[in-house]
Amino acid sequence: MKEIQGGVCAPKGFQATGIHCGIRKNKSKKDLALIVSDVMCHAASTYTLNKVKGAPIYVTKQHLQDGLAKAIICNSGNANTCNVNGEEIANAVCDLCAKSLNIKAEDIIVASTGVIGQPLDIKPFQDHMDALVESLNYTGSSDACEGIMTTDTVKKEYAVEFELDNQVCHIGAIAKGSGMIHPNMATMLAFVTTDVAISKDMLDEVIHEVVNDTFNMVSVDGDTSTNDMLSVMANGLADNKEICKKDEDYTTFKEALMFICTSLSKGIAKDGEGATKLLTCHVNNAATIKDAKVVAKSVITSSLFKAAMFGKDANWGRILCAIGYSEANYNLDQIEVHIASQVGDICVCLNGRGYPFDEDEALKILSEDEIEIIIDLHDGCEKATAWGCDLTYDYVKINGDYRT
Amino acid sequence: MKEIQGGVCAPKGFQATGIHCGIRKNKSKKDLALIVSDVMCHAASTYTLNKVKGAPIYVTKQHLQDGLAKAIICNSGNANTCNVNGEEIANAVCDLCAKSLNIKAEDIIVASTGVIGQPLDIKPFQDHMDALVESLNYTGSSDACEGIMTTDTVKKEYAVEFELDNQVCHIGAIAKGSGMIHPNMATMLAFVTTDVAISKDMLDEVIHEVVNDTFNMVSVDGDTSTNDMLSVMANGLADNKEICKKDEDYTTFKEALMFICTSLSKGIAKDGEGATKLLTCHVNNAATIKDAKVVAKSVITSSLFKAAMFGKDANWGRILCAIGYSEANYNLDQIEVHIASQVGDICVCLNGRGYPFDEDEALKILSEDEIEIIIDLHDGCEKATAWGCDLTYDYVKINGDYRT
Repeated sequence: MKEIQGGVCAPKGFQATGIHCGIRKNKSKKDLALIVSDVMCHAASTYTLNKVKGAPIYVTKQHLQDGLAKAIICNSGNANTCNVNGEEIANAVCDLCAKSLNIKAEDIIVASTGVIGQPLDIKPFQDHMDALVESLNYTGSSDACEGIMTTDTVKKEYAVEFELDNQVCHIGAIAKGSGMIHPNMATMLAFVTTDVAISKDMLDEVIHEVVNDTFNMVSVDGDTSTNDMLSVMANGLADNKEICKKDEDYTTFKEALMFICTSLSKGIAKDGEGATKLLTCHVNNAATIKDAKVVAKSVITSSLFKAAMFGKDANWGRILCAIGYSEANYNLDQIEVHIASQVGDICVCLNGRGYPFDEDEALKILSEDEIEIIIDLHDGCEKATAWGCDLTYDYVKINGDYRT
Repeated sequence: MKEIQGGVCAPKGFQATGIHCGIRKNKSKKDLALIVSDVMCHAASTYTLNKVKGAPIYVTKQHLQDGLAKAIICNSGNANTCNVNGEEIANAVCDLCAKSLNIKAEDIIVASTGVIGQPLDIKPFQDHMDALVESLNYTGSSDACEGIMTTDTVKKEYAVEFELDNQVCHIGAIAKGSGMIHPNMATMLAFVTTDVAISKDMLDEVIHEVVNDTFNMVSVDGDTSTNDMLSVMANGLADNKEICKKDEDYTTFKEALMFICTSLSKGIAKDGEGATKLLTCHVNNAATIKDAKVVAKSVITSSLFKAAMFGKDANWGRILCAIGYSEANYNLDQIEVHIASQVGDICVCLNGRGYPFDEDEALKILSEDEIEIIIDLHDGCEKATAWGCDLTYDYVKINGDYRT
């Protein structure tokens, strides 16, 4: 498997594009993205667990009942959530898009991201749908990626190439993250394309397996958004023998998808609103996977710990505190904690008690922009990893006045 | 019932004091507090639910097994948590204090607050215990209050006078809060004194009832501290007939204690680290009290919502989002949300959908420093209130470098 360029257009037979259609006031920011496969795809999604869901999610769920899709359309600048006519608008967007693409509306995945509770005007879609479709091309992944960004500062776009059944296969993806990112469900928007042939059932299975260990382990601010989803379209153009059961090919595909989703997850954490550091928390030797996950998420979510990381302060007591209020099982007297980055690794806590460390060494480690917290529970053999970011002045600034 | 001055020294027979003994480097900051009753008290405590607990909590739990206490000693500047010799030190502090006061160590409640995981030196206690005891006086509540403050910017000190059984009775209290404040358990340090005569059982019962609706409904940053506790000492010097069952006197006492604890809770929320606003979330007409509490806490805890309040941004979508990811039961289509302060009240959401409001009016309301969010679930007849604060630049600043 190797990483390649091209994002969602890296797999065979996918076109993409992104334009400014007028949902956002700022004309220099794209606000509408489209991804289209040349042929019908098997498709699957995971959705936010927030009980308040964006209207597009209800429409997409309905459209994916048959496990088939040919296009993804997504706007930024407005979440189309908690609006009286939300589903009506989401359906109208699909109808417009279907007409321009000459496909069925039910074969379209629709998504929105942005402010909640402001009516979404259909007019920008009406005025620009034909132009959007005309601008589709086989190298348009970056434009599509820009079209779905909100407060993201960098594009999250990845692709890999690998072999299945002696055929060259690809997976590509774009994602947006930034605020309202918290474990449970896709917690952001991610669109994945692949030319691998895989059955509907196996596609649905693999994305749930992968999401649990990737997107569901990312937290920026503890807020689970109303609109987030991960959608995958598989068009089969790689001509491999269709993956219909959990065989070796399934495992290979899952590993490639895991790489893509891990990259996107880290990208989302690192580009969390206002973030200056990527925080990775590894929990090792837990009694159960659940304990490992709960501890990792609790640490990565602690505002006090996140602020300490921003301040390069090796305040490991806050790590212990966050472990302590998690619902996990462990033996406090066995906990070992290390803080590390590419320039070093120090033990700060052994047997649940403070372990003397050099403050200068700690400062050097914490001055890097990718920090690892390694927690050994010495209580079993399961492990988990969670990703997050530091809490900064800019997080407050960005979120203090998001709507204007 | 009327509010009076005097804090923990308002009830008959309580002396208090606070001094600088050298745990903190800054000599202008007091770091050791003592409260002593002239006679033996019935005493009860509630403790943090964090599984990582400060050493003083274990010692206090042991000392209160007989439900009796005569003194409370508390230092700030060091939490005495996750230290190898933590309990040893906490016991040594009690021994020194008992010797100077000429009482038994088992009759002392001990507490610490500050940095986790730094060894607590016994020397400052040895050097200053006699001076601390000598400085005890019947108007020393404010000094004691200063002695327990960490990043608190204002003293939280309250007292009330009321009648029971034709006797004038008092409850007084001091508290510290600021960071690591989150629902579940006393989530801070609060010391309450009263001259009311009340049985050990009833005292234990009443503090748990009151804490559930007060301190357990406060959140500053979602982090539940390792050291927090609420302790009450009742010395009976008011000469009322001892409260031994849940009668009218119990109710009167509970109401007075509720007033004190509500005042402390609001004080702690308003003085949350870096806070500029007190946020009060009322949830009305929930199906169950649990649903009401879960919704109120979820809203008050959302970083996105808290940052919006700092920015005076009526971004009610974040309120709906926080309701949505809570574990509560409700009917989305019935939710009504108002935002209010002393200058006005606007409806921002009706039937789970956006309700048009005047942005200028919203800005006027949100420019006040005490904001109310009123959520009507239209789903039953239970209600709850939670208190919190906005998320500001200063929270990040304070917590980015707490240890130095």
